[in-house]
Amino acid sequence: MFDHQEELDQYLKNIEALIKNKQYARLRDLFLPMEPADIALLLEEAGEEEMPLLYRLLPKELAAEVFVELESDSQEMLINGFSNTELKEVLDELYLDDAVDIVEEMPASVVIRILDKATPEMRKSINEILQYPEDSAGSIMNMEFLSLKKDMTVEDAFKRIRRIGGELETINILYVTDPTRHLLGVLSVRDLLLAEEDDLIQDIMDPNVVSVNTMDDKEDAAQALSKYDFLAMPVVDKEQRLVGIVTVDDAMDVIEEETTEDFEKMAAMLPSDKPYLKSGIFATWRARLPWLMVLMLSATFTGMILNHYESALAACLVLNSYIPMLSGTGGNSGTQASVAVIRALSLDEVDFSDIFQVLWKELRVSLLCGVCLAGANFVKMQLVDRLLLGNAAVTPTVCLVVCLTILFVVVFAKCVGCSLPILAEKIGLDPAVMASPFISTIVDATSLLIYFRFASWFLL
Amino acid sequence: MFDHQEELDQYLKNIEALIKNKQYARLRDLFLPMEPADIALLLEEAGEEEMPLLYRLLPKELAAEVFVELESDSQEMLINGFSNTELKEVLDELYLDDAVDIVEEMPASVVIRILDKATPEMRKSINEILQYPEDSAGSIMNMEFLSLKKDMTVEDAFKRIRRIGGELETINILYVTDPTRHLLGVLSVRDLLLAEEDDLIQDIMDPNVVSVNTMDDKEDAAQALSKYDFLAMPVVDKEQRLVGIVTVDDAMDVIEEETTEDFEKMAAMLPSDKPYLKSGIFATWRARLPWLMVLMLSATFTGMILNHYESALAACLVLNSYIPMLSGTGGNSGTQASVAVIRALSLDEVDFSDIFQVLWKELRVSLLCGVCLAGANFVKMQLVDRLLLGNAAVTPTVCLVVCLTILFVVVFAKCVGCSLPILAEKIGLDPAVMASPFISTIVDATSLLIYFRFASWFLL
Repeated sequence: MFDHQEELDQYLKNIEALIKNKQYARLRDLFLPMEPADIALLLEEAGEEEMPLLYRLLPKELAAEVFVELESDSQEMLINGFSNTELKEVLDELYLDDAVDIVEEMPASVVIRILDKATPEMRKSINEILQYPEDSAGSIMNMEFLSLKKDMTVEDAFKRIRRIGGELETINILYVTDPTRHLLGVLSVRDLLLAEEDDLIQDIMDPNVVSVNTMDDKEDAAQALSKYDFLAMPVVDKEQRLVGIVTVDDAMDVIEEETTEDFEKMAAMLPSDKPYLKSGIFATWRARLPWLMVLMLSATFTGMILNHYESALAACLVLNSYIPMLSGTGGNSGTQASVAVIRALSLDEVDFSDIFQVLWKELRVSLLCGVCLAGANFVKMQLVDRLLLGNAAVTPTVCLVVCLTILFVVVFAKCVGCSLPILAEKIGLDPAVMASPFISTIVDATSLLIYFRFASWFLL
Repeated sequence: MFDHQEELDQYLKNIEALIKNKQYARLRDLFLPMEPADIALLLEEAGEEEMPLLYRLLPKELAAEVFVELESDSQEMLINGFSNTELKEVLDELYLDDAVDIVEEMPASVVIRILDKATPEMRKSINEILQYPEDSAGSIMNMEFLSLKKDMTVEDAFKRIRRIGGELETINILYVTDPTRHLLGVLSVRDLLLAEEDDLIQDIMDPNVVSVNTMDDKEDAAQALSKYDFLAMPVVDKEQRLVGIVTVDDAMDVIEEETTEDFEKMAAMLPSDKPYLKSGIFATWRARLPWLMVLMLSATFTGMILNHYESALAACLVLNSYIPMLSGTGGNSGTQASVAVIRALSLDEVDFSDIFQVLWKELRVSLLCGVCLAGANFVKMQLVDRLLLGNAAVTPTVCLVVCLTILFVVVFAKCVGCSLPILAEKIGLDPAVMASPFISTIVDATSLLIYFRFASWFLL
């Protein structure tokens, strides 16, 4: 495990020296005790020229494990350099779900070559999984799992594990199915170990099995696995037949990906599927421009409001200097509420039926926050703006207008911020889009309207 | 698994009817096939009065599993209602790490009662784990795990699993230690099952074990477990002795918690440890007010800049109406870069040594975005503001000033947005704080300075 960049750099220097001196056996010995994820990191860092050389030093099984951990552009480069035999060797060592992941990322020419070299069963299974929609549980499941029959004894089960368990991703959780592959029960390898050899599977299995459907959202499947603390989640088809499992490591990857997507959407970016430094300039530009453009153009309304009140502003120009503070405070208040609610929605703590409870909570919180902020601002305007900076235009009435506006803007912003994500989810939109940038744009325009309303009552 | 709120509501109605008719046996039968997490959800929804009644219907072992899944205020309420015997029964069924989690959330009086009723070994272990700092790997580890000796045979290992495996949280991963408890190797229960009965453990174990230290950050431990696809991560003390394990379900909980904290910090809130609807009005207010206050007061600088250029604005008031658009676009551009970098930092894709690579990338992306936005804005100002809205003050020079400002603000915002989180991490601050609200406040002031610079060159 590389705790520090320095440690990684040290390894890379060693590797370079060993390559230069052609000490390949020592290079191999350096890799052997390492975790596949760390070897992949070293290979990525070593660069395009040395990667194929280093990769070929790895023993077959380890090589496949490392291959899975590489970024997809490195995988593509290696595959393009592989002989047919080499490609076949890697494919034979891959678990099915990893093979599918790789195929999904490759260009068509590489996919054809992979499918050509895969065994007929693997080709069939890859094709089957590729049928499922991109975000479905079916698309990430592994079709290789261990199933038992209910009239087997524990001894039979152990024989079956010893016979085929070596080729499976996991044997920790075992599923019991009937002859038509319907899911009857679940048990762990621990249940087997603690049972007597002649116990029947049906007597020790747990007949209450939670499962997801192939067409369920993969994020829901991953969240359910996390909620129930499962090591694997069984996936059934429309006819309730067991067709695959989602293992905990894949569920963790899904959750990580979906969290990154949420962060991106909340910052007004389109989701990207590559790590930050791996995605190109144009890809990043394409992901960022659309929302910037929409939000920039929608600020036209804010400009129109300012134009409309141009004469009022000209008459009392001091009002102008508080606009950034008002829209900033409004935007931040709204962001707090919207992000709290977006997160609660994605953790299933809140749903549409809670909307009034959420609004009632935010209303009270925003009144508390609004009163404190207005009070602090009143003191600040009197002490700093009026006395310290000697701005005579900051009259008590101006002060009142600004402070009243803060109170109303904070309440408005928090109520809009908490309800928009819930409404978005209700009509099938992604609530994460209703975050900071979007809320700020709405709050900007509204806070100006509130401000000028108060100004015209008290000042103009 | 409750897919829909309606399903949950249906269950709750059933439960109410059964309680009214005192049909407790049927209630119990309703619960038995359910997952503990779902029963906990039902109990929470049933409300304070009915929860103790429903809880007491559950068989002992299931009751403990449900207890762990409840929110801490419900746990506290139940414990307060427990007789000493009931409390002891629950404690006896808990895994050590769950007991520690519960103890950490309870008020002192409840903690004393729990420690009093726990077995002496559990009391000792709880006290030991409570010594570790709150965010350390030691504080979330489980001290009950299965260790083997290297000269055991596979048969001996199975005997040991059968003897003590029933009381452990997991037996899927087994650790091999020497007499002084130093970690020698790791193997899975599958390795044992696929080996011969008289094989020695030292011959089938993997001697390269990745471990974390008790004092390591719990988030790092969880991320490492996820990176290596482990089911458990061994935790060693300063002397490299194995003292506990962190299991994958606990690692997932840590990652979920830390992600929520990141979201909160990025939205200018202090982290809370309760779910959204469970945290009180005052707790939420305390978490939200500080940053709102700091950011509001720091907007004073923006106000001072506007005051400083008051006469310039008065001379050319049309400039004013573009300020919200400029600061909004700058804020959004900065947010995009900062959030992308914050996420990359937390996934270990980027560190301090990458800062120039990151800046170079953002510089080019921001030039692309800036040129496009300035161009679009030029067209919009000519077509909408000048022709459609007939605002004669929008001269070509005004247009030039606004568009040049957009370009420079976007470049500045993205460069600041990408570098501040990296610098924050370098000096030991949390990069998540350098997100949207903070960046926007800096960008607000700077965009005004840039704007008035161009205005005074071209217009005044």
